[in-house]
Formats: sequence, C-alpha cells, structure tokens
Amino acid sequence: MKNVFILCFLGIISFLVGCKTPDETSDSQVSILTKTNLETWNQGANKEAIEAFVQKTTDPNSPDFVPEKSRIAVFDNDGTLWAEQPFYFQLAYGIDYVKKEATNHPEWSKDPVLKAAIDGDLNGILAGGEKGLIELVMKSHSGMTEDEFTQNVASWLGSAKHPETGKPYQQMVYQPMLELLEFLRENGYKTFIVSGGGIDFLRVWAEEVYGIPPYQVVGSSIKSVYEEKDGKMVIVKTPELNFIDDKTGKPVGIHQHIGMKPIIAVGNSDGDFQMLEYTTGAEGPRLGILLHHTDAEREFAYDSLSHIGQLKRGLVEGPSRGWLIIDMAKDWSKIYPQ
Amino acid sequence: MKNVFILCFLGIISFLVGCKTPDETSDSQVSILTKTNLETWNQGANKEAIEAFVQKTTDPNSPDFVPEKSRIAVFDNDGTLWAEQPFYFQLAYGIDYVKKEATNHPEWSKDPVLKAAIDGDLNGILAGGEKGLIELVMKSHSGMTEDEFTQNVASWLGSAKHPETGKPYQQMVYQPMLELLEFLRENGYKTFIVSGGGIDFLRVWAEEVYGIPPYQVVGSSIKSVYEEKDGKMVIVKTPELNFIDDKTGKPVGIHQHIGMKPIIAVGNSDGDFQMLEYTTGAEGPRLGILLHHTDAEREFAYDSLSHIGQLKRGLVEGPSRGWLIIDMAKDWSKIYPQ
Repeated sequence: MKNVFILCFLGIISFLVGCKTPDETSDSQVSILTKTNLETWNQGANKEAIEAFVQKTTDPNSPDFVPEKSRIAVFDNDGTLWAEQPFYFQLAYGIDYVKKEATNHPEWSKDPVLKAAIDGDLNGILAGGEKGLIELVMKSHSGMTEDEFTQNVASWLGSAKHPETGKPYQQMVYQPMLELLEFLRENGYKTFIVSGGGIDFLRVWAEEVYGIPPYQVVGSSIKSVYEEKDGKMVIVKTPELNFIDDKTGKPVGIHQHIGMKPIIAVGNSDGDFQMLEYTTGAEGPRLGILLHHTDAEREFAYDSLSHIGQLKRGLVEGPSRGWLIIDMAKDWSKIYPQ
Repeated sequence: MKNVFILCFLGIISFLVGCKTPDETSDSQVSILTKTNLETWNQGANKEAIEAFVQKTTDPNSPDFVPEKSRIAVFDNDGTLWAEQPFYFQLAYGIDYVKKEATNHPEWSKDPVLKAAIDGDLNGILAGGEKGLIELVMKSHSGMTEDEFTQNVASWLGSAKHPETGKPYQQMVYQPMLELLEFLRENGYKTFIVSGGGIDFLRVWAEEVYGIPPYQVVGSSIKSVYEEKDGKMVIVKTPELNFIDDKTGKPVGIHQHIGMKPIIAVGNSDGDFQMLEYTTGAEGPRLGILLHHTDAEREFAYDSLSHIGQLKRGLVEGPSRGWLIIDMAKDWSKIYPQ
C-alpha cells in the first residue's frame, strides 16, 4: 500500500514566479564556491557542514575536489522539497481528476473506490485498500496521451488548494531547499529529483518551480506505448506499472536514469534510506542529508510513527553514518516562500 | 533476433583525445548561431539545411525560435555516430568477454554458443539463434556489479580492434557527426544518445568520445537490483531484459528518459524511423536526419538489404516527410577523425 501511496502522489506548485530558480543549464562553468545564499538557513552546525562540503568539493586545491562533471546531487521530493501531509499531493490530483471526469464515466459511480473519490470521501478510498488505490491511480494517470496528461496536471495545478492549509500547493515548497538547489547549481552541481512520486507528474512543474528540467527527474512510472490515436502517432500511458522508485528502487532508479553515483543525496524518510546509503557508501567525498519534520507550528511534526514519510531507521543510523539531520524548527528561519 | 543483436551491441572508441568535444554543460548560454564548424561537411543542400535550421531555431527574432530549454537533439549511435559493420561492436565486446572469462567458467565450453564464442566462431554463435545470443549477452553483461561492468568495458576499449579494418574502434566514429554534436551544443542544444545498444555499455565512453554525459544516454537495458555483495550494498546487473530501445521503443525511451519531445532527431536505419517520426510529427520547427551509408570505399555501403542497420522505409518515406538524407560519399569530406 505504501508503494501505491507513493505512486498516488504529490501535487502541484506550478509556475510560481516567486520560487523561480535559475535554469539548470546556467552557471555550470563555476568551479569554486562563489556564493553563500542559504539565507533562510540558520547559522549552526548543519549549515556550516553543507557550506564546508560544497567548498571542499569545488576548490581545485582541496584533496576532496570533485570534477564538475561528477557533481551530481539527488533530492527526494515529497517531504524534502515540498510538504507531503496529510497525504501525498499527487493523490489529491488523482481524486480531483476522477471527480472532474466522473460525468464522462457514469460506470465509475458503481465502483466503491471511484465513488468515494467522486464524493471526496478519503476514508472510503482507503477502505478499498491497495487494489482500490491502484485503480484510482490508473484511472487518473493512464488511458491518455502524454500531452493530455500534461495538460490535465497543469490545469489542476492552476486551481488546487491544500486540504488543511487552504494554500495553493505552490506555496508549500520549502524556501531553504530552493536555496540549497540554487546554491549547488551555482557551484557546478547538477541537481536531480529522485522521487517515489510519478515521474511524469513531476515533470510538468519541476522546471518552473525547482529549475530542474524533465530529463533530470527520476520517479515511479507506468508503462507507455507508441501507437496511433486519431490518425497521429503518439505516446499513450497504459495502466501497467513500470517502476517503483522507492527504497531499494531509488539506487536502481539512479543507476538506470543517471548512470553515475551521486555526491550529495537529500531525503526525509526511510524511503530515502537506500538512496543515502548508496550515495555515501561510495568512495570519495559524499554527503547525506535527512530533513527531520520537527515543526508542528509552521509545518507538520512527524517521524517514526507517521504513515506518510516515516523516518525511523534514518534517525537511528543516520548520525553514525555521518548524515546531517536537519531540524526543521531549529535550522530553518522560514518554511514556505510566502 | 534483431532485438538481441541490438542489445548485443556496439563497441568502443574510448578516451580519444583527438575526438574530444566540449563538456555537455558548456556554452549552454548561447542563444544565437555563433559558429559554423561543420568543416568536414561538403557544401550542399544538406549542410545548408542543417545550418539554416539551427539558425532559425536559435535566432530570437525568428518565428521558429525555440527557447534554449526546449532545444533537445537525439542521436542514434550505431551507424549514426560510429560504424556498425560487419556487426554491432557491442557483440564483439560480448564475445571477447566470454573468451577472457572462459577459464573461470569451464562449464561454458559445454554450451555450443559459448563454445563458439570462445573459439571466435561467429557462424557458430549465430547458429544458436536468438536464444544463443541472449545467453551470450547475459553472460557478458550481467552477474556483476555496475562498477565491475564499467571496468570490463573500459579495459576492453583499451585494446580491442575492429575485425575487418584492424583499427581501434575509437577511430571508427564519424568526424562529421562529432562536429554536428559540437555545433548543436554551441547553439544551446542538449545532445542525447537514443540507441538500441546497451545504455551502460555506452555510458562508459560516451562522455569522453562524444561529450555526452551518462544521464543523457538512453539505450536498451537489463534489470538491475540493489543488494549486498561482499558486505557492501551495490547495484548488480541481472540476466533479465528491462527495455529494448529500438523502433517503437525509441519514442517510448525518449518519453521515459528525457520527458520532452526532441527538436532534432538523427539516425541511419529503419530502427530509427519511429524516433524521427515522433520528433518531426510534433508541432513547431523539427528536423529529421537520416545517414545513408553510400561509401563502400571509405566506410561501408548498405541500405535496404543489410541485416544490420537496414534502411528501406526511411529512404522511401523520408524525403516526403522532409527528412534530410545524408549521402555519406557525397556530403562528407572525411569519415573518421584519423
């Protein structure tokens, strides 16, 4: 069920001017530390450790210098770059899609899970278990062309609001992480998303919001085929799982998609454990970072007992592995851009 | 069998100083045509068409201007960026690997296909049909970690020679194509390989030879898993097919890996037909290019009747689809860099 939740996944953000980071392609010539723009990171051991790591890996005179072509940084998305509570935002997209399309599919109301989605009844959706969630994801993510899916997600992004905060999802990205992405790129790192969420869902908005182009997004996927539709050859998304990019799937996804071992890995849950383990287990300078959600006032506080973004093993083993544990309440002066 | 041949695939090149192209990350800020360095392309309609296309897509005042972030160019590899006759170079790697490892696997000599490989008997290998070729590929490409595979390929690259010309494979890349890759990058295009060959095999040398980083290589693949080996968590390549990036697989591979429709697609065989169709079928300015192997003296001459790199449908339909058909004998003043 976790896997399905992961596939059923995040939400939106979208074309947010205030969050714009420089294009991934820019500033790639920089080879030594040029700027410390981690403005909303409070001074302390974690911020210093991040700056020191970037300094030593970009200084040609350092024994830990890393050539620019090897500077790969991977970021989880849900709970790392944006919020993930009370459930992955992509699931909200799935529910809203089924609601919106219900009138074109009267047969959906006979299915208990789809009926629950149409009624906005989250408990009813969850009552269908894994099978029901798969059905919901497939109905909302397949049976359409790549262009149609992109348009559906983009359209949803324009109007959707978070169920608890009432904010547009695009206000629920983490300002300190936007700064970290930019800081790394300014120092010659290529930034990638490696998410349990859907790769095509992310690609619709990752470039506008994070400055990460579609080909630097790794995620879970369903299979697609190239076939004729309405007289035109197109990519059609099919209701069959292709790859789950979570837990041990993350190193595999990195291997398949990036083909290089990252230098820096950033996550927030035990679903990211193997990604950090794979990254920091390689030779040479490596940095693992876990975001600990400790801020019930400004965001959400959760870790080992959460059904979403559970962080248990990482908290226990992370410090002895040299990973930084970011304390959101203490380390960040600001959470969201606005 | 074609699919397996494709997987069983290309060869080498390797760390060739003379062929070095600028790092993929460089010069990405350029937004108008800055340099015409297609030196070994003879003057004529094809060269002019390529230059005009790049001109109009990079000139901000042109109605066909393409923003830099959308400038994606995809290249087939075998027969497009380097030679592919008399059989895909990657198959030579597979045969040489089996020969080299045979003493560690006495059981291989009891298998007719592996025995044929050990004896360097190509006809014996082909007599095993698709099943035999799959076995040869799996034996030479799986059951090892990603690092071990990389080392095996890199080591082979250092000594292997083409069976007919006696040249190192790295002398069998096409100088005009190296110039085209560089020309496109200098004009803000991101260059990708989209090959029927093995993605991990290509990644070992594509950056050194073509200036294309591992994460911009798309190819066929076998499955991999993340598991413990000798007390360390590593990626292990398994003997199970994951994806065949050929024919209709190429648009699917582009969708999965790049997530954007290319502006330019370059190939040489009917295995590239769908990639060019997908690319040039999209809205806006698009360019399809097919390399026709017409030069028996300097390279190889083959098209519709070849068992490798067959080009039939592309020659028939390409011109009416607006694709450029490059006549190697006529359009190129030089084939190999040396």
